[in-house]
Amino acid sequence: MSYQIAVLSGDGIGPEVMAEARKVLSAVETRFGLDISYSEYDVGGIAIDNHGCPLPDSTLKGCEAADAILFGSVGGPKWEHLPPNDQPERGALLPLRGHFELFCNLRPAKLHDGLEHMSPLRSDISARGFDVLCVRELTGGIYFGKPKGRQGEGDDEEAFDTMRYSRREISRIARIAFEAARGRKNKVTSVDKANVLACSVLWRQVVEEVAKDFPDVTLEHIYIDNATMQLLRRPDEFDVMLCSNLFGDILSDEIAMLTGSMGLLSSASMNSTGFGLFEPAGGSAPDIAGQGIANPVAQILSAALMLRHSLKQEEAASAIERAVTKALSSGYLTGELLAADKRSEAKSTAQMGDFIAQAI
Amino acid sequence: MSYQIAVLSGDGIGPEVMAEARKVLSAVETRFGLDISYSEYDVGGIAIDNHGCPLPDSTLKGCEAADAILFGSVGGPKWEHLPPNDQPERGALLPLRGHFELFCNLRPAKLHDGLEHMSPLRSDISARGFDVLCVRELTGGIYFGKPKGRQGEGDDEEAFDTMRYSRREISRIARIAFEAARGRKNKVTSVDKANVLACSVLWRQVVEEVAKDFPDVTLEHIYIDNATMQLLRRPDEFDVMLCSNLFGDILSDEIAMLTGSMGLLSSASMNSTGFGLFEPAGGSAPDIAGQGIANPVAQILSAALMLRHSLKQEEAASAIERAVTKALSSGYLTGELLAADKRSEAKSTAQMGDFIAQAI
Ligand SMILES: CC(C)[C@H](C(=O)O)[C@@H](O)C(=O)O
Ligand SMILES: CC(C)[C@H](C(=O)O)[C@@H](O)C(=O)O
Repeated sequence: MSYQIAVLSGDGIGPEVMAEARKVLSAVETRFGLDISYSEYDVGGIAIDNHGCPLPDSTLKGCEAADAILFGSVGGPKWEHLPPNDQPERGALLPLRGHFELFCNLRPAKLHDGLEHMSPLRSDISARGFDVLCVRELTGGIYFGKPKGRQGEGDDEEAFDTMRYSRREISRIARIAFEAARGRKNKVTSVDKANVLACSVLWRQVVEEVAKDFPDVTLEHIYIDNATMQLLRRPDEFDVMLCSNLFGDILSDEIAMLTGSMGLLSSASMNSTGFGLFEPAGGSAPDIAGQGIANPVAQILSAALMLRHSLKQEEAASAIERAVTKALSSGYLTGELLAADKRSEAKSTAQMGDFIAQAI
Repeated sequence: MSYQIAVLSGDGIGPEVMAEARKVLSAVETRFGLDISYSEYDVGGIAIDNHGCPLPDSTLKGCEAADAILFGSVGGPKWEHLPPNDQPERGALLPLRGHFELFCNLRPAKLHDGLEHMSPLRSDISARGFDVLCVRELTGGIYFGKPKGRQGEGDDEEAFDTMRYSRREISRIARIAFEAARGRKNKVTSVDKANVLACSVLWRQVVEEVAKDFPDVTLEHIYIDNATMQLLRRPDEFDVMLCSNLFGDILSDEIAMLTGSMGLLSSASMNSTGFGLFEPAGGSAPDIAGQGIANPVAQILSAALMLRHSLKQEEAASAIERAVTKALSSGYLTGELLAADKRSEAKSTAQMGDFIAQAI
């Protein structure tokens, strides 16, 4: 099998951690006899610098010709003064999601054995661990709903956004959540605000209907405000959380922070053909860029998600995940995951990549 | 001075904790020579049972005739099967907010000395303490924006909500946040999603303009997803958080949970005339209702907020707050705030009320 990957490393630590993901991909190509070729394209801040916009046509064309997009991270202080629409993150990610209709965003987050102390949660809560998969709708809701704009003048000037969801949009993402739950703890928690939003009332109704096809999966509904709270008290009681675009943005970040190790979290954004964009959950971390200390694990795990979901190479994906687990459980860690008095044992970005590539 | 208060105790623990707030109010009336009269009205579930709807006309009329509303809590399993619009919480709170244009919601949340262990945060984070005031816009945004509804059929059926904010709405709530910051740590963190929402772009712009009138107050902006995260890592770095209706709903609940002691948190919802509704942040807690173990402190502190904001009786308000602090710092606590092995020292709802009333 031969595959074509569009590599969009972006800004900050993006290129450094991408180099390690490429090392690990090389190792799995050899081991599993895969034929993967890579083309690199500018995205985000570097694309603004080189081409005048965060998502140049050449990049979009390159992505169209590929089987999947491996994405690094974008943004940094240099481009923060730009108007919202032109900024690296918004200007690259939202059009990519819209253009390829990447409606399905998977954000797995678990507390790794031995890393419980990284969680900002109280020790008795983090000791119970947690493993949550956030399934977020990514091309609908208030992100893309029309009309959106401004009108009026003076004190009456007003801005408006439209949250909008169709039955079709809700049911396709709900199905994915239920299917994912089957490979996990068979529980879906659907997050909404049905006591206030018309969209949430429809959301709840459609999710109930889809649930009928999954009698083996337990469904519960929770209001977004309450979800934010319960995740702090009893994160271990959640399995799959099914969210609309906006609520998923908020909750998946809360959950990511609860692990205390953003450098380990990856995410997948896919459409119905299996095409997808795979990226770390953390940002471009300009403060540590270029120092060789960034954690490449999230980028490496993004490559694993790409192998699994877009390339359908489950064995290669699992091999990467096992190699990562091996590194973490042997205490092979970058500095941010170590207590202050153990920082001298910190591994560099490249050492992490080497270790994981060798463990394949 | 003579005042008229509409007392809406509601469901669950509402009536029990309200009885203690009334005790404490009696004590301040005597001490400060106030003349307060009270009229009780049904609201929420009990109003559905007695009058067929969660906010009967008689209750609304009673509130109109009063100087302030002292609200308990509403809702419970008995009414959960009702359609969203008819449920106790939504059906009572949203119309009250709309009718009296209670646009300004203040939700103070601090970690009390000696109660750090209640917080779900890691001990080194909770040891630093925190004291956050959430200033939430309460009558605009996606809660009340029109159009809101459903259209279409079959798979194309869709629901929609409108988020809408005018300059006027944003600037009046922003002013309140800046003024509040002056009596605190002089810092306002404005929460938005300006990288996605047109409303947030206007929000940020208007908040910047208002900030010019408060050169002594530091302003920072944060995206809602990032706010959810930073509150977990460094809650002590926030002072006043200024939020739209929806983001305030989510963030104020997260912050409340971070204290680990919802039974201590009160909130004020006010309009521009000083009229307001004062209520505990927690719910009706039907599981412990009728047992005499509910914590009345949040209801008592709601009465203090009422004295301060609607009745302009600052001295009486502070006297209540000092009496509460005295109870808490002497370890005079209800059961949910005590470690399992100290539950035998738990004070009852009535004992808490008696102690605080006597301390006035
Ligand atoms: C950059 C921003 C538009 C984006 C979002 O809100 O979806 C980001 O926060 C994310 O979660 O991927
Ligand atoms: C009951 C509900 C409509 C309400 C809200 O969303 O505002 C509640 O969650 C609150 O925060 O007071």
